[in-house]
Amino acid sequence: MPLSDPDFSRLTASDAARLLQRRALTAQALLGACIEVIQDREPQVLAWREYDAPRAMEQARQLDQGPIRGPLHGLPLGVKDLFDTRDFPSGYGSPVYRQHRPSNDAAAVALCREAGAIVLGKTVTTEFATFTPGPTRNPHHPAHTPGGSSSGSAAAVAAHMVPLALGTQTAASVIRPAAYCGIVGFKPSFGLIPRAGVKSLSESLDTVGGFGRCVDDVALLTSVMACAPQWRQLPEDRKPRIGVCRTPQWDKASPAARQAFESTVQRLIAVGVQVVDVTLADSVSALTDVHDEVMCAEAFKALADERVNHPDLLSERLRAMLERGSRITFEQSLQHRAQLASARHRMGRDFAGYDLLMTPSACGEADSGLEGTGDPLFSRIWSLLGLPSLNLPVGVGPQGLPLGVQLIGPVMSDTATLAFTRWVEQALARG
Amino acid sequence: MPLSDPDFSRLTASDAARLLQRRALTAQALLGACIEVIQDREPQVLAWREYDAPRAMEQARQLDQGPIRGPLHGLPLGVKDLFDTRDFPSGYGSPVYRQHRPSNDAAAVALCREAGAIVLGKTVTTEFATFTPGPTRNPHHPAHTPGGSSSGSAAAVAAHMVPLALGTQTAASVIRPAAYCGIVGFKPSFGLIPRAGVKSLSESLDTVGGFGRCVDDVALLTSVMACAPQWRQLPEDRKPRIGVCRTPQWDKASPAARQAFESTVQRLIAVGVQVVDVTLADSVSALTDVHDEVMCAEAFKALADERVNHPDLLSERLRAMLERGSRITFEQSLQHRAQLASARHRMGRDFAGYDLLMTPSACGEADSGLEGTGDPLFSRIWSLLGLPSLNLPVGVGPQGLPLGVQLIGPVMSDTATLAFTRWVEQALARG
Repeated sequence: MPLSDPDFSRLTASDAARLLQRRALTAQALLGACIEVIQDREPQVLAWREYDAPRAMEQARQLDQGPIRGPLHGLPLGVKDLFDTRDFPSGYGSPVYRQHRPSNDAAAVALCREAGAIVLGKTVTTEFATFTPGPTRNPHHPAHTPGGSSSGSAAAVAAHMVPLALGTQTAASVIRPAAYCGIVGFKPSFGLIPRAGVKSLSESLDTVGGFGRCVDDVALLTSVMACAPQWRQLPEDRKPRIGVCRTPQWDKASPAARQAFESTVQRLIAVGVQVVDVTLADSVSALTDVHDEVMCAEAFKALADERVNHPDLLSERLRAMLERGSRITFEQSLQHRAQLASARHRMGRDFAGYDLLMTPSACGEADSGLEGTGDPLFSRIWSLLGLPSLNLPVGVGPQGLPLGVQLIGPVMSDTATLAFTRWVEQALARG
Repeated sequence: MPLSDPDFSRLTASDAARLLQRRALTAQALLGACIEVIQDREPQVLAWREYDAPRAMEQARQLDQGPIRGPLHGLPLGVKDLFDTRDFPSGYGSPVYRQHRPSNDAAAVALCREAGAIVLGKTVTTEFATFTPGPTRNPHHPAHTPGGSSSGSAAAVAAHMVPLALGTQTAASVIRPAAYCGIVGFKPSFGLIPRAGVKSLSESLDTVGGFGRCVDDVALLTSVMACAPQWRQLPEDRKPRIGVCRTPQWDKASPAARQAFESTVQRLIAVGVQVVDVTLADSVSALTDVHDEVMCAEAFKALADERVNHPDLLSERLRAMLERGSRITFEQSLQHRAQLASARHRMGRDFAGYDLLMTPSACGEADSGLEGTGDPLFSRIWSLLGLPSLNLPVGVGPQGLPLGVQLIGPVMSDTATLAFTRWVEQALARG
């Protein structure tokens, strides 16, 4: 059943990988199909800071002629412009780094290339992965944001420009754009993927993650960066117990988001999933505000050079964020750590009652307008706790834009979390 | 009591800061004295990768003419060549980065400059802060190592070339060179000082620290980078209870190191310190080996670009370390985390019985020969636990080289740890 060329761009990364590994699909054919989509859709979506089709095609040619390099052999990859790359500018979404051309790859990028990935280009990030947007538009509707901060990576995968892309999350920068663009986004447990060569924003939060079209795709991509080959051999039969958590922010979710969430709960019950309603402990709920303060305080330190030497090149929104960070005292920072330790302890106990926690991924469909990237509200707690979390698309809202649910697992249980979320994905696809 | 010019180089940073703040000493006079020492001693010590006396003097002139900039106003600073700097090459101790000239300062460097420090130059680091040495010699004896990886920073402070210098510690890279060079080195709790712009080696271990001539000096320097002003206003009356820990590696300590340690215990008892003998729990002792494996496994990931693209430019020793890291499985890494959590829990309880834990800082006097930098053995556990630790010089061995003790506090209790160690320092100076 040969696919016609344009169809290659619609393959999941895991399906494409299987074909590439047995030479039933060439890297050149797959890349060619992706480049065609980019040429067609990029003028509207603006997902890329820069891409280089001829250089990527030369790499594809070499891969087709040489041995199988690794699990990502021949897969085109979009890389958020927060990662250093040896062959593209690395601008971090800021005019401060307009001329920046590193000589080396970020460690995560080098690991992907070592495994055979083809870096097609750099995707648009918000300013230093904060809240000031780049030009990217939602591929489902050009008047809406794709979310941020991994705006270009999520949009590029959703628009079928690449099967896989790299992102990072400090607040909600993988989960929210994945939800807004209707794809799978996975943020592994904090600390599993190296951040060397990724512009630092908030050291206790920044986490490398990935985008794809299905759970297997993000498992494949992140497994390479985490050096976790077992994420590529997930067991098939992991039906999860699910803690359904409407969160204290439930009233911030749109009617459509709530409806999609409740309907997902009903569909899961219908396929026999054991579901339990979960109310977060006060110590855990409190982390939404703690996260915000930790992020501002750490960004104030991490961006010291830019703040001191290039204040005029920072957006007003970022300057305000750093100003807030400057006012958080050392005692408050220690208090934040104590609150986090307490909440972490509590969540560790609570996870005995279920395998996955399910919350909305975002407040609703992607906001209209391109002056913001939406609210990270529903992911702040889980980013601070460092838990593996994944966006699963579950439908479309009244504006025709995607909606998602966020599935969260216990810390360092990424293998099980991926297996359980894949079970959910497949049950929902069948049901 | 005016000091003659050359004496300025012997001032502690905290004494110099007091004079600079009230304009009783000019930045130019202090810097001039430091430069004179460098010109005299650098040909033998080789502490610097590069320094720029005229540019530093111009900065000193501007500081003398302008307002007081902050707590480090006018203090010359040496910066380990693992930190990015906007005005010096940043080579990370590796030929891979021989041509590397970043356009921006590491966050920690920017914070020091914002507080008025004068970056006089970059000090020699071992290769990527691992175990392959640079050219630096011990200022007390040129045939001996200064320790590593912060070799140049420790040697420069010990040789009175600068009052303060920045270092980093992944295994023992602040404590060991401080001990070998006979100065104070302080590694704060993990996570307090931003690492943005510091070349990453092992993400769960790498910690920025500082060197000075006394506890007040390192408190002053690190307070600026941790945004912890209270470290500059330590209470005077903190007599600690001390847990005396000879560690399971006691037989690796030289007779001279053991004698210096025991004599320190006796002097502390003589000044009325409550001392308790501590045997480490098995879960804690096991961390010496766990640390080694965590470091190798994380280095294998962090140095992916260099390993893949420049294998011929890495030392054989580093390649062997990365090869060991490549063989550590994902399951083993999860097991390491579980072991760490268990040991962390145990140490948290044990610290109820004492305020500081005291161990040898290193196996003995600095090794002779420049082909190695000594053994990090006595600091591995505390680096992995992320505990604040400090080297205090306590004497001189039979080869005329310094010996030190390592004082360790509970995690995130850096303010108390600094206050207690200062009490110990002053009691030993009196006794």
